[in-house]
Amino acid sequence: MNYEYKEPLVVQEVAPRDGLQIEKQWVETEDKIALIDALSACGFSRIEAGSFVSPKAIPALRDGDAVFNGIRRGRGVIYVALVPNVKGAERALAAGADELNLVMSASETHNRANMRMSCESSLAGFGNVVRLASGKASLNATVATAFGCPFEGRIDEERVVSIARTYREMGIDGITLADTTGMANPRQVARLVARVLEHVPAADLTLHFHNTRGLGLANVLAAYDTGARRFDAALGGLGGCPFAPGASGNICTEDLVNMCDEMSIPTGIDLPRLIALSRTLPALVGHEVSGQVAKAGRNCDLHPAPDYVQAI
Amino acid sequence: MNYEYKEPLVVQEVAPRDGLQIEKQWVETEDKIALIDALSACGFSRIEAGSFVSPKAIPALRDGDAVFNGIRRGRGVIYVALVPNVKGAERALAAGADELNLVMSASETHNRANMRMSCESSLAGFGNVVRLASGKASLNATVATAFGCPFEGRIDEERVVSIARTYREMGIDGITLADTTGMANPRQVARLVARVLEHVPAADLTLHFHNTRGLGLANVLAAYDTGARRFDAALGGLGGCPFAPGASGNICTEDLVNMCDEMSIPTGIDLPRLIALSRTLPALVGHEVSGQVAKAGRNCDLHPAPDYVQAI
Repeated sequence: MNYEYKEPLVVQEVAPRDGLQIEKQWVETEDKIALIDALSACGFSRIEAGSFVSPKAIPALRDGDAVFNGIRRGRGVIYVALVPNVKGAERALAAGADELNLVMSASETHNRANMRMSCESSLAGFGNVVRLASGKASLNATVATAFGCPFEGRIDEERVVSIARTYREMGIDGITLADTTGMANPRQVARLVARVLEHVPAADLTLHFHNTRGLGLANVLAAYDTGARRFDAALGGLGGCPFAPGASGNICTEDLVNMCDEMSIPTGIDLPRLIALSRTLPALVGHEVSGQVAKAGRNCDLHPAPDYVQAI
Repeated sequence: MNYEYKEPLVVQEVAPRDGLQIEKQWVETEDKIALIDALSACGFSRIEAGSFVSPKAIPALRDGDAVFNGIRRGRGVIYVALVPNVKGAERALAAGADELNLVMSASETHNRANMRMSCESSLAGFGNVVRLASGKASLNATVATAFGCPFEGRIDEERVVSIARTYREMGIDGITLADTTGMANPRQVARLVARVLEHVPAADLTLHFHNTRGLGLANVLAAYDTGARRFDAALGGLGGCPFAPGASGNICTEDLVNMCDEMSIPTGIDLPRLIALSRTLPALVGHEVSGQVAKAGRNCDLHPAPDYVQAI
């Protein structure tokens, strides 16, 4: 690995969407808006602010319209909405989303379980969304379970590359490779990212890692070292996976930014402000969160030595 | 980073010492013995089984003698004892420890706070232990706070290298670089490990990382990629730091072994058995532990797809 790199790393904050969607405690619309506004003030250039899926499927995010209408737009910040279909895309566009994020799993089984449709139907739907949104918002599409599926296990790399190419051919510029249930390892990440970068420019590629098995930040470094520059992360490490009760969710934003700060990789994000914001999460969601740096503080937050040290 | 490596990685299990020493709930001697015996059966070649420090300083480990006398010695397994001074070394040798591990901090302030003596006094004591133990047990010495100190902050790399060389010149073959409070980052690790490997053969060098700020496994990979081959880890991620309440402790053994398995790095350790053992920890110590893989399972532990998938 080349440890002397200094190229900026872009963090897309996803707590308001991928973080909150799994929370059992209802988070008030005004609290969601306040969270997103506070995130905008931390220096993020991209925030996934909500989703426009069926309120029955994900009741925690049923207020996507009100949230998008309520936030203060930070200058230069792109506010992304997850949309499952044309109906969701119409709502997201009406609410003023800057970018629409579509999702299909590389695993046929996972797509049917998660989206309740075949991959073929998903791609047909993507075509409709592209036609609707063209010229109105930028588009991103996620390859979920790109590094492994909890039902099918290993996923053929060729299939992931092929899906990414299909997305691009459909007119979807942004591509996200998502390790939906935290099955990726750094060796695999380096290999797959190198292959996908042959077809997708680094400026259009996002890596979405979960820390389910503790490898989230190691995977970020492997991808960064291979040329990837944009990463999803959730404040406090919010989010999770129904198959790993008690395990970590998304990689934690402040842990990622702390790593970058310590390694002199620029992110443009204000870490002390981010840590302070993360420390408000337990009150918001009703439980402790998995992020480490908000508990441990930064390296430069020194402690006083015990008094007896002077006498030795 | 070279992701095609396959050289074995040695894991030294430290839960019985560095893990249990911070636990508030008393762990019975017979339970400690059972834990170490179960670890021996998982395939470890090295286990830090206890310490011979003052019972007042660390009451949780006051039964070091009984523990060492009670364990079943696994074939080829080296059982290490932490010793603070000659008195501890005498006890450890009498109890049959195969290796003695000494500790001094690179930070003068941390050494005074932790060992209640100056670094000069620590080194003088090491000399006495070397004379006592020579020919009776192998020796290792740890450079604590090698990557940062919670009181002093950054630690001069030259000082760490110099201490490692001093240890070797005193006749102490084994050297551990310890990130005592989880302040290391992968770039720093690669740089310092490269420097220390100029003076210490990889077979004698151990890296001891804490996951306090979420970087434990990323640091392992950076060190491994630089040529280090031996790593401390604690079952369940036991251990911790008084300055980071709620944050993770030692890097988690089963998370490390899972990473190695997924990357085809041989460890010789039986992961399913290790995971089963880790799942007994909450009952032993009275609280949840921070390891992820014991909660999430291995990648190959697949889940049944929901029934409705068939009908789509």
